[in-house]
Amino acid sequence: MANFIGIEGGGTKFVCAFGSGPEDLQERVVLPTQSPAETIKALAEYIHQVESKVKISGIGASVFGPLDLDPESPTYGYITSTPKNEWVNFNFVGALKQEFNYPIGFDTDVNAAVMSEYRWGAAQNLSDVLYLTVGTGIGGGLIINHQLVHGAMHPEMGHILIPQNKNDNFSGVCGYHGNCLEGLASGPSLKARWGVKSALDLPEDHIAWEIEANYLALALANYTLTISPKRIIIGGGVMRQNHLLPKIQRQLLKHLGGYIQNPTVVKNLETYIINPGLQENAGVLGAIALAELAYQHQKKRD
Amino acid sequence: MANFIGIEGGGTKFVCAFGSGPEDLQERVVLPTQSPAETIKALAEYIHQVESKVKISGIGASVFGPLDLDPESPTYGYITSTPKNEWVNFNFVGALKQEFNYPIGFDTDVNAAVMSEYRWGAAQNLSDVLYLTVGTGIGGGLIINHQLVHGAMHPEMGHILIPQNKNDNFSGVCGYHGNCLEGLASGPSLKARWGVKSALDLPEDHIAWEIEANYLALALANYTLTISPKRIIIGGGVMRQNHLLPKIQRQLLKHLGGYIQNPTVVKNLETYIINPGLQENAGVLGAIALAELAYQHQKKRD
Repeated sequence: MANFIGIEGGGTKFVCAFGSGPEDLQERVVLPTQSPAETIKALAEYIHQVESKVKISGIGASVFGPLDLDPESPTYGYITSTPKNEWVNFNFVGALKQEFNYPIGFDTDVNAAVMSEYRWGAAQNLSDVLYLTVGTGIGGGLIINHQLVHGAMHPEMGHILIPQNKNDNFSGVCGYHGNCLEGLASGPSLKARWGVKSALDLPEDHIAWEIEANYLALALANYTLTISPKRIIIGGGVMRQNHLLPKIQRQLLKHLGGYIQNPTVVKNLETYIINPGLQENAGVLGAIALAELAYQHQKKRD
Repeated sequence: MANFIGIEGGGTKFVCAFGSGPEDLQERVVLPTQSPAETIKALAEYIHQVESKVKISGIGASVFGPLDLDPESPTYGYITSTPKNEWVNFNFVGALKQEFNYPIGFDTDVNAAVMSEYRWGAAQNLSDVLYLTVGTGIGGGLIINHQLVHGAMHPEMGHILIPQNKNDNFSGVCGYHGNCLEGLASGPSLKARWGVKSALDLPEDHIAWEIEANYLALALANYTLTISPKRIIIGGGVMRQNHLLPKIQRQLLKHLGGYIQNPTVVKNLETYIINPGLQENAGVLGAIALAELAYQHQKKRD
């Protein structure tokens, strides 16, 4: 089994581990996010230390963005317009390439997540899979015909515009669109709308959850109609409410209005809209899945 | 150059032609849509007649649906639940296969359209392309990573749910959803809402067109955010109004709200949202593009 380095880079910490998958994940470390130079130095030390023990076949990194992921762009592999000033226009992939000669996978956290669910989790080898995370923000990663989707930029499907309930005057919290999906259904939206410190403070029978399920189901209806996935995995902090998933499934059926008859979708809602299969270490496993993908692409080219 | 048979099958007529592309399209014929047996007989006679003159490398058919397009389904190649009773559960591909041993391409009209635009039209060789038709209905065909998208069923993106203007009480004409995109912005919707015989009767400065542009732009914003295509081609009867496209482009910018900075999208709207490149014979060329694709897949397998 080939060993890969996984790097999950967030705004406050970088999580690293190595291995070939969930069964043999090793030497997980957590490094604080410092300046780009300091962070890369710490990552390099980690990788050199792993290298001294096992043969490495690739590195994968899912890093806070926005990222330039267009392989034809002169700034491919850069972190672009992040609010973290030191990191603006930092050539993340370039910095790793200066130190290491391995294939390097690099992508968004949501693409890493959908890739690891496709590889080891709740959507193994399904050709068309959507992974949606509902937390501080809402974002989606997409596999179509067994391939990650990037396109012109990369999907920003948390910002789609959905019909707001007629009697709902909440203006939403999205800084760009106000009441787009993220503005109406993210964690911060729940807090702002109901004046709670955490969405977890809202009891199960609070009307908040029916409204939340309605907006998420509208979005899932639109994704279903637009890309026709075989499975939608929905994770993130807000989804930790176990009662939310069945509410969403119910409302999705309503929004599809009997138009979609496909059994994968409407006859098997419990396998169509599901929770993630990977829990612990999902982020760093996503990065390892990206490393494996980069390794396979490299082998194909050679 | 390989020659292919193209069959564009509609509810009232089947258009056939052969050739390798738009430059050498030959012997275009129009056959009335009769019973399945009669129609297949007429198609077979046409194909045999072409065969007697040139070597054929494949057949492509885009046929009125809904269709079973899942290659793993036991009813792949069937027309499924059409309102045309005689054609319900008719094995279209099977009927052709009984008579001919060529590779057969079979898909929806919109997938044929996006494929021919990708092959010869306004999106040549772009990895990620959406073709949207706005006419009697609204439908979309999708290429992602250079491949046609089918997924669990096939996209039905004309039925996505979008925010209706607060002061717009029109209930929409979609039999399933009422005010989904198709319910609010198809040709029949324009006629019903404004009481005209044809949308073409509405003058250019009629408020109808700003409303129409607004709803189509909302949908294009959602498609942009969800799948991140490199180009969106928008055709169909309603789009024959030349003033409509710039109105849509303008409103799309507004709906994206400054969030998307990608130059392919926001800096080049005139090349991002465009009219089809193929006009005459676009339908039958789409079918020829499907035939070519089936031929290439067959070659890869051999």
